[in-house]
Amino acid sequence: MTIENHLQQWQSQVAQLLETRLPQPETMPHTLHQAMRYGALNGGKRIRPILVYAVGEALGANIDDLNAPALAVELIHCYSLVHDDLPAMDDDDLRRGKPTCHIEFNEATAILAGDALHTQAFQELSSFEFSSQAQPQQLEMIRILAEASGSQGMGGGQAIDLESTQKAIDLAMLENMHRMKTGALIKASVLLGALCAGPLKQKERQALNDFADAIGLAFQVKDDILDIESDTETLGKPQGSDLAKDKSTYPALLGIEGSRRKLTDLLQLALQALAELPYNTQLLADLAKFIVHRKS
Amino acid sequence: MTIENHLQQWQSQVAQLLETRLPQPETMPHTLHQAMRYGALNGGKRIRPILVYAVGEALGANIDDLNAPALAVELIHCYSLVHDDLPAMDDDDLRRGKPTCHIEFNEATAILAGDALHTQAFQELSSFEFSSQAQPQQLEMIRILAEASGSQGMGGGQAIDLESTQKAIDLAMLENMHRMKTGALIKASVLLGALCAGPLKQKERQALNDFADAIGLAFQVKDDILDIESDTETLGKPQGSDLAKDKSTYPALLGIEGSRRKLTDLLQLALQALAELPYNTQLLADLAKFIVHRKS
Repeated sequence: MTIENHLQQWQSQVAQLLETRLPQPETMPHTLHQAMRYGALNGGKRIRPILVYAVGEALGANIDDLNAPALAVELIHCYSLVHDDLPAMDDDDLRRGKPTCHIEFNEATAILAGDALHTQAFQELSSFEFSSQAQPQQLEMIRILAEASGSQGMGGGQAIDLESTQKAIDLAMLENMHRMKTGALIKASVLLGALCAGPLKQKERQALNDFADAIGLAFQVKDDILDIESDTETLGKPQGSDLAKDKSTYPALLGIEGSRRKLTDLLQLALQALAELPYNTQLLADLAKFIVHRKS
Repeated sequence: MTIENHLQQWQSQVAQLLETRLPQPETMPHTLHQAMRYGALNGGKRIRPILVYAVGEALGANIDDLNAPALAVELIHCYSLVHDDLPAMDDDDLRRGKPTCHIEFNEATAILAGDALHTQAFQELSSFEFSSQAQPQQLEMIRILAEASGSQGMGGGQAIDLESTQKAIDLAMLENMHRMKTGALIKASVLLGALCAGPLKQKERQALNDFADAIGLAFQVKDDILDIESDTETLGKPQGSDLAKDKSTYPALLGIEGSRRKLTDLLQLALQALAELPYNTQLLADLAKFIVHRKS
């Protein structure tokens, strides 16, 4: 099976899980549940649950066990997007070509829908009946997810991002922001997948952390490059939405060639980290390459 | 020790826990952490953690074990207040005489601070090292807290409240809304306190649920009465902030005398539920009476 086939299979698995596990639109309160579903069932790339499945399968986890953490990390991601799009935050009207949640519904509903998606992540992870292989790590998974999402993880990263818009920041600050804003949840996804296979030895944990750190940053560098290149193709000028918003980006700090080199270096680091793991990590290597070479 | 002494002791215990466990203001990102502390260290009544302590002590829990659930339920309550005060929601500028979080900071920071308080509740509950008396129920506590906070608990109640403002709703709808908006978290507080003492038998759980349900509604009826009476004293006319906002209230549906009778009935139900429990529940009875007779 090619990596593309795997991705497709995992994506539809996540879509189906969200479809079933999110409260149905006819469950009271209707509008809130419709908004939660709208904010989550939006055809996202599902990179985080894909990492849960890919790492879990590589380490020999029970496939059924992976569903709960896959769902949980995606719910956290979806909640953060619904809140980040709000007028007081990034003020985005469109996401993936569709009206954002507060445009489709209203601001109050979008705030509450984000909050409810947030809570549901912990509900899924705490209520799932894991097999005996994963169950002993269930509390640790919840702890890791909470730490990754909170004020010193994803939430803190978004705060730093908002504060640093329209300010000059250096590469170290940019990387720190990305490590918190997107890296922390990507790392949590990798660890949750791994913990479904059993407790982690210190060396494995370190290698998985290094792998997650490298692909987390690579994902962001690639996003920044795509923001310029897809616009370059479309508009014939190097102007993306990040530039328009005065956001700090890798291309702004390193140039486009420097960013491409950075991407190659990060892929190298990710592959080196995988080499430390005593498993067949071909699928994870393919996934890292996919993240770096993707066209959108 | 009188109930007032107990309340004071528990309140300072909660204040001290929040003070220590919330990230310090000098921890990066500064503004976010300052806003989290501002939203939580505001001299609230701390009814929910007080219930954790009161029920836990009545059932023989280890006092130290009660700290984590006490902190967790209060963090959820504080996050909900920060979000409920936002312009898109209740649009309140003042809370307990001080500027609300989005007025003191800004809207984006208040949204993120609410989100981070929300996450920290689950972080505290999943990372605390409970004694062997409470540890077997740790996952159940997380599950109960998540269910109580989500779209079919507190969050859903707030959605229904927003939808029903300026609409005529009947008593059944009003009670359903309050059972979700405030009742669910009050019930969770009671159950979390109890679970620190050991697993719950079905009959105990039922009695505790009935107790929580009665005091949860009583708390709300009393709030509605105070909203009118404190204004009546101050302004000489029966106009409170709920009325000004066209919110449905018990006095609006039952009249002031009807609401007082309702309150007496609910206290009776709470005390009957306590009588089902094979413990010394004097403290819980005193707490129920305090909720019903309080002056603010």
